[in-house]
Amino acid sequence: MTEFAELDTPCAIVDLDCVERNIRTFQEYCDEHDIALRPHIKTHKIPDFALQQIAVGAKGITCQKIGEAEIMTDAGIGDILITYNIIGARKLARLRTLADRIDLLRVVVDSETVARGLSGAFADGQKPLEVLVECDTGAGRCGVQSPTETANLARVVDALPGLKFVGLMTYPPNGGMTKVETFFRDAMAKCANFDLECPVRSSGGTPDMWQAHKAPVVTEYRIGTYIYNDKSVMARGGCLEEDCALRVLTEIVSLPAPGRAIIDAGSKALTSDLFGLEHFGYVVGHGDVTVKSLSEEHGILTFDPATQPFEIGQRLQIIPNHVCVVSNMFDYVQLCRNGIFENPAFVAARGKMV
Amino acid sequence: MTEFAELDTPCAIVDLDCVERNIRTFQEYCDEHDIALRPHIKTHKIPDFALQQIAVGAKGITCQKIGEAEIMTDAGIGDILITYNIIGARKLARLRTLADRIDLLRVVVDSETVARGLSGAFADGQKPLEVLVECDTGAGRCGVQSPTETANLARVVDALPGLKFVGLMTYPPNGGMTKVETFFRDAMAKCANFDLECPVRSSGGTPDMWQAHKAPVVTEYRIGTYIYNDKSVMARGGCLEEDCALRVLTEIVSLPAPGRAIIDAGSKALTSDLFGLEHFGYVVGHGDVTVKSLSEEHGILTFDPATQPFEIGQRLQIIPNHVCVVSNMFDYVQLCRNGIFENPAFVAARGKMV
Repeated sequence: MTEFAELDTPCAIVDLDCVERNIRTFQEYCDEHDIALRPHIKTHKIPDFALQQIAVGAKGITCQKIGEAEIMTDAGIGDILITYNIIGARKLARLRTLADRIDLLRVVVDSETVARGLSGAFADGQKPLEVLVECDTGAGRCGVQSPTETANLARVVDALPGLKFVGLMTYPPNGGMTKVETFFRDAMAKCANFDLECPVRSSGGTPDMWQAHKAPVVTEYRIGTYIYNDKSVMARGGCLEEDCALRVLTEIVSLPAPGRAIIDAGSKALTSDLFGLEHFGYVVGHGDVTVKSLSEEHGILTFDPATQPFEIGQRLQIIPNHVCVVSNMFDYVQLCRNGIFENPAFVAARGKMV
Repeated sequence: MTEFAELDTPCAIVDLDCVERNIRTFQEYCDEHDIALRPHIKTHKIPDFALQQIAVGAKGITCQKIGEAEIMTDAGIGDILITYNIIGARKLARLRTLADRIDLLRVVVDSETVARGLSGAFADGQKPLEVLVECDTGAGRCGVQSPTETANLARVVDALPGLKFVGLMTYPPNGGMTKVETFFRDAMAKCANFDLECPVRSSGGTPDMWQAHKAPVVTEYRIGTYIYNDKSVMARGGCLEEDCALRVLTEIVSLPAPGRAIIDAGSKALTSDLFGLEHFGYVVGHGDVTVKSLSEEHGILTFDPATQPFEIGQRLQIIPNHVCVVSNMFDYVQLCRNGIFENPAFVAARGKMV
């Protein structure tokens, strides 16, 4: 096997046909169910892919970091939701600059402290900053804890200079469609008591992407991983192996003992993310081989010592457990079509910490 | 607490006094025990720190990737050991170019296949490539499995055009000093039967750094983590909290519920490396607080709900579990002295996959 002989290992290869199919298929699902799609670019961090997602029908994009949003704005994207509490004078100044450059910038808040910071930065703005209240519907990360808290915070937000409350946002727990439906409906009713409408009800997550329509209250869906997919999505039944667009191309560098092979991809390529799975990725075409452990630049494969499926220099493709963190390890991903390497794509927002 | 107010979070801060002390202290230990020190630059990936390690007394450096070695060569370092099986025409050509640029380049092999590839690239060289045979003394990664295999491979290497066998290399298992001593002594005797000397006997590893002298056969010690240290070294008794030079500076962005705080450092900053530990880092000054879980850009801290030690916007320093992978996430680290930010240092070899 001398796949992609022109590429040096380890590298991340991305199948363009698969990317385009993944983008199109979920867009069609959202269109069918009348859900606005707002892809999260944290997975690919590549402006061209974000533009492609919009060209196929996405309403806008989601970012987690101001630095990501700045890069997407530079690429001409004008509708961005940052699903993160933005605090501190430096970040707020950058947020304001960003808002003045694009058509629509939205952010989330889950506390009055965060809302007051935003207000301070936007009180003298040309247009108000649109704000969603983040709700904890069971995932246990950020978010207000109840519909009552949601409405109380919405009222605070809407009264603050420079801010406009426009709705609700959540990152739901796995299988949490009913929880989202119940929480959002209740929160909307409580907001209505304050004469506040919630035109935007934003949910998301790849694990339950095909169940998005089961929370009909949701108007907008945020999703990142679906563009590449990974072992975790496969394991949860969200995609098939052929839907996994990003693979780490690696090479066997050592066969030190029966039942053990060493590859040139370790935790600095595949990362240690288990994401609820066992072991560190899926070896394409070798379902009986385990990526047992990783050190920084080595991966240890184990297999039945009675077999010797490998030779030194042989290339393998690994579907990572969690593709979003893996794509963030590479300065470039290698774009391929029909098994042929086309060109590298710069992962422009890689490593944007702020 | 408004520490390092001029820095935006999350970022990696590096205390220069601590770095200098860590470099000096282990150099003194090696000098005392007459062990040549060859620091592994995979931890910091910063040429200035490598030059400092050499200025204080290191014999040369260790790299894992050709790309790392190229950057260190550009910085003027002329003595490099790459502890990795280098295979494939592209990498071998780069290795040869590198060898022609510096005084001393050494590599390791653990198979005849790898040795023959190196020979092909160096057969017409000005000087032979110095080669160590990598030995698996119990860590179960790369390496030949026995002293007999070692000697057999050494004989093959030394007979190949363009190569010169110069000794043994191992990355030992934790607490494996006796194993290294026994394996190396036996391998040297078996090599002597073939009239082959092993002037270089290279071992390494931060976990057992203070035990290096207990394998007196070892002439050279490779060590990376010691420059920064981390929670894993602390947990194994190798350093104290004040010896941990790199910390991730992070900010509380949400206090959604009693006993839970959310920070702006997730798996794209702290990584998911557990390294045998529980949880995802040590919160300086808050030993009773747990970094319970990470998503990509959020860290979830948990603590006794009866207490509320934090406020939104408060800054915390996290000592990561495994600093080598964390430093590799950041394009820059922020250099500090006496609690004052001095300047950023470019992590020049960050993300060098090849």
